[in-house]
Amino acid sequence: MKHEPSDPDWERKIRASFARQGAMATIGARLMRVAPGEVEIAVERGPAIGQQHGYVHGGVVGMIADSAGGYAGYSMMPPGGSVLTVEYKMNLLSPADGDTILARGRVVKPGRTLVVAQVDVVSIKGGREKPCALMVQTLMVMAGRADGPQV
Amino acid sequence: MKHEPSDPDWERKIRASFARQGAMATIGARLMRVAPGEVEIAVERGPAIGQQHGYVHGGVVGMIADSAGGYAGYSMMPPGGSVLTVEYKMNLLSPADGDTILARGRVVKPGRTLVVAQVDVVSIKGGREKPCALMVQTLMVMAGRADGPQV
Amino acid sequence: MKHEPSDPDWERKIRASFARQGAMATIGARLMRVAPGEVEIAVERGPAIGQQHGYVHGGVVGMIADSAGGYAGYSMMPPGGSVLTVEYKMNLLSPADGDTILARGRVVKPGRTLVVAQVDVVSIKGGREKPCALMVQTLMVMAGRADGPQV
Amino acid sequence: MKHEPSDPDWERKIRASFARQGAMATIGARLMRVAPGEVEIAVERGPAIGQQHGYVHGGVVGMIADSAGGYAGYSMMPPGGSVLTVEYKMNLLSPADGDTILARGRVVKPGRTLVVAQVDVVSIKGGREKPCALMVQTLMVMAGRADGPQV
Repeated sequence: MKHEPSDPDWERKIRASFARQGAMATIGARLMRVAPGEVEIAVERGPAIGQQHGYVHGGVVGMIADSAGGYAGYSMMPPGGSVLTVEYKMNLLSPADGDTILARGRVVKPGRTLVVAQVDVVSIKGGREKPCALMVQTLMVMAGRADGPQV
Repeated sequence: MKHEPSDPDWERKIRASFARQGAMATIGARLMRVAPGEVEIAVERGPAIGQQHGYVHGGVVGMIADSAGGYAGYSMMPPGGSVLTVEYKMNLLSPADGDTILARGRVVKPGRTLVVAQVDVVSIKGGREKPCALMVQTLMVMAGRADGPQV
Repeated sequence: MKHEPSDPDWERKIRASFARQGAMATIGARLMRVAPGEVEIAVERGPAIGQQHGYVHGGVVGMIADSAGGYAGYSMMPPGGSVLTVEYKMNLLSPADGDTILARGRVVKPGRTLVVAQVDVVSIKGGREKPCALMVQTLMVMAGRADGPQV
Repeated sequence: MKHEPSDPDWERKIRASFARQGAMATIGARLMRVAPGEVEIAVERGPAIGQQHGYVHGGVVGMIADSAGGYAGYSMMPPGGSVLTVEYKMNLLSPADGDTILARGRVVKPGRTLVVAQVDVVSIKGGREKPCALMVQTLMVMAGRADGPQV
């Protein structure tokens, strides 16, 4: 699905909002590709975000997935609008054992009040991608609240 | 529901597994009450785990909820067994604007292959609790893998 | 949680809306207890709603659960308002092998735009209840649409 | 994703299992396309499966979605194996107001113990498709139980 942003300033807003989230910096998350209705966020494997086997913690996978979907929705908000995560479901498909974990969020159903996003998370090792997790998320449109997803 | 642990060493195992998770230390999560089939995990509000309004990031709420449910399941595993998160759903009920965010996980359906846990997350400010999030989680029993939830 | 209905006519509206749903009649669903924020719906086991082992079909369990949660939310709507199911998650805990399958829906988080409901489904055989399924549901409030949950 | 069936008899098994489900006949569900890892099920709009606006009842949409995903998983089971629905999440994207409602299930992650399926439901009117619902489902593999999905 091809989406049209309704705010010409959409990309700058996403980057600024992401930069304000202390939690994203704490886990070393990086904002990768941003496009209307599509946002990618990545983390690199390391002890600070590990679980007991040294893989990336499932909770960290959930954090970047939730943010990737939230910013995908945010990219389509009109000026002065933002989004709030209502709920999401996460299926963990395989261990996050790659060097890089990449969450690709995209809007599957835009709406005036609610937006549905899907996030495919892949684990990348030696240039090869493996499906790692699948999230489906419901976002609420917040008219007149301009400062990014409230994830 | 009252649960019987099948490993007399259950409490020590949970505390040791939790201590091995770098990601839990990174977000400042603390293991609170542990009982058979019930585990509580808390974080304190602060910039390192904040979103752009200064509340606790939704992804961090998800991390402690997932871990609280996972350890609730782990508390009932036989010696040499552990659990793996298969999937979860998270409904965010209100902003995580308290001083402490506390996730209370409990097993609602034990099973030989799968365990279902429910996690109620509350936001605590000035001693008053407010419902913050609700998670329902499916865990898979891993016989013969002794080192804690692979969240 | 104790709820106050905002429409004195709430009970009559629920019974009238339920009676208009052809699909509920087709599966033989009956509206049982109704209270503010709480609604119960039941079906009796039988070939017309069976799966291949003769138990009640999981899809029928889902139908009565979705409706029980939807009507629980509807019971609290102001005059002229109704609810729409946004999404739900269903965990199937045990086979629906009872004589009666009963879905107990209740509102866990009321709200102006969204309502969260939880539904516990039990399977009843010889007077004994067994947990059968657990649903968590997000409903959207439709102001000015008076005719019941649009499940 | 391309899937290889592990039972040469897979198609006949699916058709026979579907035919045994009384609940599918009751709602007028028809088994459409079947392929390894992919199954489609449809219903036609009508009063017997309607909600109060005359659209197809959301619970009926859920029933065919659950079955389409379940049979998609079943198509890949080895001889003597079947699948059991563990849980699913359903996002309702738009009213089921078409003449035909079609659920397209496909396996997104095969596994020895668990299988994850995704189901896209479309509403078809005058030959045009509109996204109606999105389901993500976890199925459990039942070795040695040969009679179809226990949905």
